[in-house]
Amino acid sequence: MHVMVIGAAGMVGRKLVEAMAADAAAVGAEVDRLTLVDVIEPAVPAAFSGVGTALAADLSEPGEATRLAATRPDLIFHLAAIVSGEAEADFDKGYRVNLDGTRALFEAIRHEGLRAPYSPRMIFASSIAVFGEPFPEKIGDEFFTTPLTSYGTQKAICELLLADYSRRGIFDGVGIRLPTICIRPGTPNKAASGFFSNILREPLSGKEAVLPVDESVRHWFASPRSAVGFFLHAARMDTSAIGPRRNLTMPGLSALVGEEIEALRRVAGERAVKLIRREPDPVIRRIVSGWATDFDARRARALGFTAETTFDEIIRIHIEDELGGKI
Amino acid sequence: MHVMVIGAAGMVGRKLVEAMAADAAAVGAEVDRLTLVDVIEPAVPAAFSGVGTALAADLSEPGEATRLAATRPDLIFHLAAIVSGEAEADFDKGYRVNLDGTRALFEAIRHEGLRAPYSPRMIFASSIAVFGEPFPEKIGDEFFTTPLTSYGTQKAICELLLADYSRRGIFDGVGIRLPTICIRPGTPNKAASGFFSNILREPLSGKEAVLPVDESVRHWFASPRSAVGFFLHAARMDTSAIGPRRNLTMPGLSALVGEEIEALRRVAGERAVKLIRREPDPVIRRIVSGWATDFDARRARALGFTAETTFDEIIRIHIEDELGGKI
Repeated sequence: MHVMVIGAAGMVGRKLVEAMAADAAAVGAEVDRLTLVDVIEPAVPAAFSGVGTALAADLSEPGEATRLAATRPDLIFHLAAIVSGEAEADFDKGYRVNLDGTRALFEAIRHEGLRAPYSPRMIFASSIAVFGEPFPEKIGDEFFTTPLTSYGTQKAICELLLADYSRRGIFDGVGIRLPTICIRPGTPNKAASGFFSNILREPLSGKEAVLPVDESVRHWFASPRSAVGFFLHAARMDTSAIGPRRNLTMPGLSALVGEEIEALRRVAGERAVKLIRREPDPVIRRIVSGWATDFDARRARALGFTAETTFDEIIRIHIEDELGGKI
Repeated sequence: MHVMVIGAAGMVGRKLVEAMAADAAAVGAEVDRLTLVDVIEPAVPAAFSGVGTALAADLSEPGEATRLAATRPDLIFHLAAIVSGEAEADFDKGYRVNLDGTRALFEAIRHEGLRAPYSPRMIFASSIAVFGEPFPEKIGDEFFTTPLTSYGTQKAICELLLADYSRRGIFDGVGIRLPTICIRPGTPNKAASGFFSNILREPLSGKEAVLPVDESVRHWFASPRSAVGFFLHAARMDTSAIGPRRNLTMPGLSALVGEEIEALRRVAGERAVKLIRREPDPVIRRIVSGWATDFDARRARALGFTAETTFDEIIRIHIEDELGGKI
């Protein structure tokens, strides 16, 4: 099987590639060819025993999508996007990369299929940013998408295209609406959502972290390991069970910031919790207050997608996957 | 006020233009300039006392949207689209006209506004085709859009763009999801929905009509007069009451084919009803079975949009507006 990962240099993309390199049957069939694509050339893991190719390409540049489709991968993971903040600040770039780039990929596959029969599986990374407040207490699978950012708009549009192209048999698409990924590895960044990870990751390494909101803030989470699991499951699953509604809100954990901190106390003790410094930030508080807090991801669960059910588990996964199993 | 109607040669477009020509304050302020646009040059009504201009233009052709936006209308009605059947049969044309044409218009307005401050009101004709079965008994205002046609996909995408461009203040948009318009004037056509109008319009003129489905089929209707009323109300209304959810399912009448026929009997007698010939068509039956049957259009009603509540009223409007008041 030839697998292409677009957005392979990102955090989830890298972990997804590593998972396929470590287990050649992670996507349900042996992967003998991996094509990794990102705007900067991604790395092919040394552990991968098949033919690995790394390409620097921007889907929104003329001809690039056609070049990728011409390699006729059996399975495509499309994770490439510019993030929410940048898509909001730069209107043209957001629409060009997140909408036109994705559409160019879908069109290139359609034209490749017109040349000679071809219909790969297409796993698309969407986001809970397709939803906009006000929300019900739990957002159900039939709740409408009324995004309040250009990023969310671009993702919602790509979801519609994904469903229409799948309905027409151009590809076999699954849209994966990711929860907020926690604990993100790396260093604190300026993303408004960063603190959800910072207040766990930094204390687990003996460093201080800033909490800009109240402990009563509720949000929707899954670990990086779960995110990779969603993509692999979407690649393996029998898509005939999905029907025409191709975009799925992934399962996750609805938790309070206070529950994150309690889990940190249980796993790493009071000393770790003391490293969280409260520094209320009204701007971040306002941004976060517009985010979804809970979902009833019934369809995805019924289709076999799974995620963590406690923050203790999310913290333990971080310790196992990022800290070599110990703190 | 300078008003532009794109799609001015279509059935609803023509009636909308006539309404503005007959009452210069129909949109809440005096219309002294009308620019009428369609792929074939539309007619400026003789009754219009202001400056009328007719243009043949296809929004999806390079430069055309820019040319239209440069005239800086205060109010734009965008009704231009190719219909469902054609958008399904011709993938490229459907996306080019219904998606790219609309996006080109939106982008041209954005660029016009970057040149010098400009933010017109934009009324966009959407459709209940943005919904796809299975449906709840009544489709509420928060039900998700999962279209089962490329036409519905294109309309749903334009709705998302409309909301995002409005949120950014590029224009002040309102999306109008039209019910099935009944009684459509003219002659029977091959549209799968044609019979809903044919079985009333033809017998009202003493002609035979074919009914291809059972009387138990339920569907969602509004008269051409209501459709025009929706657009005029959207042009006049205080949009601050809408908030960021800019696309509205219009009110309508949920009725059985049997109820259409009963209303025909009451208004035009048994002789008219006898002109309906039953000729079951399994293909049309199957298509129609996938359509929405009822909506709870609460938001639009609360915002002042109104439609008929009985089929007797729909028939009487046809007699008044199309048959000179008598049958």
